[in-house]
Amino acid sequence: MTYRAPVRDLAFTLQAVAGIDRLAATGAFPDYDAELMGAVLEAAGQFSEEVLEPLNRVGDRHGATCVDGNVATAPGFADAYRQFAAGGWTGLSAPAHAGGQQLPKALELAAYETVHSANMAFGLCPMLSLAAIEALEAFGTKAQKATYLTRLVSGEWTGAMVLTEPQAGSDLGALTATATPNSDGSYSLTGQKIFITWGDHDATDNIVHMVLARLPDAPPGPKGISLFLASKYLVSPDGSLGARNAFRPVSVEHKLGIHGSPTCVMAYEGATAELVGRPNEGLSHMFVMMNAARLAVGVEGVAIAERAFQHALAYARERVQGRSVWTGAAAPIVDHPDVRRTLSVMKAKIAAARAICLSTGVAADLARHAPDETERKFWKGREDLFTPIAKAWSTDVGVEVASMGVQVHGGMGFIEETGAAQYYRDARIAPIYEGTNGIQAMDLVGRKLSQDGGEAARALIADMKVTLTELPRLYVGKPVERMANAIEAVEDATLWLLDAKADPARAADVLAAADAYLKLVGDVAGGWMLARGALWARAELDAGQGDPGWLEGKIALYEVYAANVLGHVSSRLAAVGQGGALLERMTVEVLAG
Amino acid sequence: MTYRAPVRDLAFTLQAVAGIDRLAATGAFPDYDAELMGAVLEAAGQFSEEVLEPLNRVGDRHGATCVDGNVATAPGFADAYRQFAAGGWTGLSAPAHAGGQQLPKALELAAYETVHSANMAFGLCPMLSLAAIEALEAFGTKAQKATYLTRLVSGEWTGAMVLTEPQAGSDLGALTATATPNSDGSYSLTGQKIFITWGDHDATDNIVHMVLARLPDAPPGPKGISLFLASKYLVSPDGSLGARNAFRPVSVEHKLGIHGSPTCVMAYEGATAELVGRPNEGLSHMFVMMNAARLAVGVEGVAIAERAFQHALAYARERVQGRSVWTGAAAPIVDHPDVRRTLSVMKAKIAAARAICLSTGVAADLARHAPDETERKFWKGREDLFTPIAKAWSTDVGVEVASMGVQVHGGMGFIEETGAAQYYRDARIAPIYEGTNGIQAMDLVGRKLSQDGGEAARALIADMKVTLTELPRLYVGKPVERMANAIEAVEDATLWLLDAKADPARAADVLAAADAYLKLVGDVAGGWMLARGALWARAELDAGQGDPGWLEGKIALYEVYAANVLGHVSSRLAAVGQGGALLERMTVEVLAG
Repeated sequence: MTYRAPVRDLAFTLQAVAGIDRLAATGAFPDYDAELMGAVLEAAGQFSEEVLEPLNRVGDRHGATCVDGNVATAPGFADAYRQFAAGGWTGLSAPAHAGGQQLPKALELAAYETVHSANMAFGLCPMLSLAAIEALEAFGTKAQKATYLTRLVSGEWTGAMVLTEPQAGSDLGALTATATPNSDGSYSLTGQKIFITWGDHDATDNIVHMVLARLPDAPPGPKGISLFLASKYLVSPDGSLGARNAFRPVSVEHKLGIHGSPTCVMAYEGATAELVGRPNEGLSHMFVMMNAARLAVGVEGVAIAERAFQHALAYARERVQGRSVWTGAAAPIVDHPDVRRTLSVMKAKIAAARAICLSTGVAADLARHAPDETERKFWKGREDLFTPIAKAWSTDVGVEVASMGVQVHGGMGFIEETGAAQYYRDARIAPIYEGTNGIQAMDLVGRKLSQDGGEAARALIADMKVTLTELPRLYVGKPVERMANAIEAVEDATLWLLDAKADPARAADVLAAADAYLKLVGDVAGGWMLARGALWARAELDAGQGDPGWLEGKIALYEVYAANVLGHVSSRLAAVGQGGALLERMTVEVLAG
Repeated sequence: MTYRAPVRDLAFTLQAVAGIDRLAATGAFPDYDAELMGAVLEAAGQFSEEVLEPLNRVGDRHGATCVDGNVATAPGFADAYRQFAAGGWTGLSAPAHAGGQQLPKALELAAYETVHSANMAFGLCPMLSLAAIEALEAFGTKAQKATYLTRLVSGEWTGAMVLTEPQAGSDLGALTATATPNSDGSYSLTGQKIFITWGDHDATDNIVHMVLARLPDAPPGPKGISLFLASKYLVSPDGSLGARNAFRPVSVEHKLGIHGSPTCVMAYEGATAELVGRPNEGLSHMFVMMNAARLAVGVEGVAIAERAFQHALAYARERVQGRSVWTGAAAPIVDHPDVRRTLSVMKAKIAAARAICLSTGVAADLARHAPDETERKFWKGREDLFTPIAKAWSTDVGVEVASMGVQVHGGMGFIEETGAAQYYRDARIAPIYEGTNGIQAMDLVGRKLSQDGGEAARALIADMKVTLTELPRLYVGKPVERMANAIEAVEDATLWLLDAKADPARAADVLAAADAYLKLVGDVAGGWMLARGALWARAELDAGQGDPGWLEGKIALYEVYAANVLGHVSSRLAAVGQGGALLERMTVEVLAG
């Protein structure tokens, strides 16, 4: 089994669902057009298939090792990274002034889907550089941009996000690393950090750490955190590398999956650092990186699901057991309805998650670059609303589809050599990092839903209703009814939550509803996007364009989704309304009883 | 974190939900009473906690090794097995005439839940002996019983089920191993078998293989398979061990989980074997073992979920992050609503799965031992209907809850040393072996549902409706409505399926519905059982008996389940009706497109 990049589906999703063509009109992407999009996706897919995929099992088996304060990555990883940087893949969306190609974020996300599919452990390295690029572009000084940003964009160096401490995970306000000012304007950074992805490695000469720490006079809690930059080697004014900085990896974690990605425990012992942005505003600066990273993690969920799906489909086409209910002949298991259903649902969920992520990417691009302020505000609202959904819903799909992929293989799925088990292990991290999916749900109901008085949610519902009016062109009966019910459920739940949010005494009700609300909006938004894809396919068919079988497949795919996923809305709605009081009755004593 | 056997919950489920007290009246279990039940569960729990749990990580890390045709188990496993046998745990439900304690199967299942929780890889060894005991008790000759059955019951030897071949997994009819008659009445067994759990090990002097193979003149397909017994060492008439038989383990698999359980590739090279039961009826004989094994695997699902839940709860009680929405104080994460909800749903699903499995166990006991033929038939119908549900629904819960357990731990959940990841890996096998969950669903809709014209399903629905009439004693509004809707959904789906079953042209519709129907009945039966537990708890409270906080917890638990699980029924119902034609449109080309 080798991975084949789904270039056609990526392009379809970007155009038919995410509406990437709007970006051409913004003028912000001078080189962008549909042809370039196709070329970028083709080339990314080819690199992922040919260079990164062959290293996937190698990374899983070898992992990374930490000896004497240096991490060695799995065989082939360092060289692959250098090829990746040489190919320009680290600077796709970065601004031209920093040496980037200034292409849409959405296109970069689509290209990176193939990277994560081919080798999720590898993909984390450039993904975290992109986050550092975002932060330096937004908050770096001119000098910081000249020294660090350009080298991150070129891929000469990589970036790392350095947040978590043993006592400070979801609650970053509890972190205690300190930064003491030195007489030369630099800072001395001290503390221990954990879960630092690609915190050290042997693929580049230098590594740029973006570190959260406290100034000596900082207020306690989240408002006393600042963002610092510390690089593995000190950098002279001419850009040449000097002495090794006073930080090092202490160990790499022994993890369930993504073994090829070194997850470091890092010790900072008076490391030389620079302040990035404003003192005590580090957490909000970090959220600039984090939002981009959250969306990128959503894409990882899509990617690992796609990989698991392809693996399972290939097995189901080869493995002959029993006879077909349709033809009566000895049949590969893909011809058994329950296996066909499983694969169809996998495909439908992947398509929905991909559509959600890439639509969020286009929204992010438009939020920055739409010519009109009102439009930018609209798309910023859409981006904010969808970012937690893209992260959480898609990574849940990653785990679920990877598990279904194991199941399609039967007993072979449980044997490590088959490969399906690795996706099940790798996928499991994505709902956890960059803010657990529970944190995403709280962000959605606690902040994103109500920050504009519910305007973005209402706009989304209105857009869904427009699609609903168009669905009878394609379907009669159930597929239309299900979308109507689904939209109604989103509307009911949204009103319920906005009401509850307005009453501080109902804070626990809101939090008890968070997970179900996120899943509800994700389920329905995914269906809405597949429906729009189906409508586009119908229009192509009517115009006599494209591959008819493939386009008909888009029409069937929405029906599969409507029958197997949209029905969940009533259960999500029930869980939205369960209330905090019920959970209070589930005391620790009852749980432990 | 150490495991604590949930003895009180097990006893509650056996009595309040599964109705184990009916068994006392049958006379088939002379030593059984409620007091003995409590003593057995206490002692089993203690053994599991003290002897088996400490070996769980050892087994995961060391696995088993195969050198020169002999498997060595992980350190401590062989000794623990001998203690297990010496304690009488291998003969709990076996008949007294074979040296067993002749206790109810349901009690044995409950006791074994603690074994599987403490060490799932270990538990497979005695679990497979139980299956061999079932088959020999049903089909063995007097001599076979005297030689083999008694030693399996005492635990002196262990048993293995030897079915799968590389080309014959779900489709056992495709197997090709052969058994040639010898002049002395024995057979020579030749072939290669895979996925043989505990097929070889160093814990006992001998191992009894129950092997499916073909006689020379056998018809092709499933009707030409016979059941044979071959033991690792040949047994003299006086019971002493002779030469090593001509079969051996070739290798052990490198698996995702249950590393402590040796999964062997076995080669039979003219091994001496005996026929068990009638020629060419091996598959139906094997199903006697398999049905018991399927229920036992369901209990494994409960067990691994319970273990994952306990681990997650312990972490959630210790890990302090942020502040409580209820008290405003710095709080352990169990006091955050989303974590409390997660743990509550985990607990509710475990309780439902446990109730389904133990109720199926009591039904199996009554199907054999109820004094009255009509009653036996009723309980046989219930056992048959519930066996695939117990297996599939509970093992899905195992995977889901283990995954939720990882999630509760946040980043620590992904680190192997934490332990949560092992449950996620171990749990994944249970939906696969002893018939994949897809096979269970096909068995349910293809055979169990309609074999009696739907009578067992109608009886179940009638029983549920009785409970529904009692629910208003406890709840008003939603918790009652949800059960009413749920029962209606089961009724609708059952009628739809019985209709579809009656029309051979709709075979694909039935198979397309199978998975959703199994999940639907499982969801609703689980809720029905929790509701009965809540009613029992109410009665205890009203009578001033028992621990009030714990009993109130049972009442809240049904509400959690009703809000978070029962709502799924409309989605299950939608998927039941999706139809085979839609799946036909999802051609291989569309899937691969």
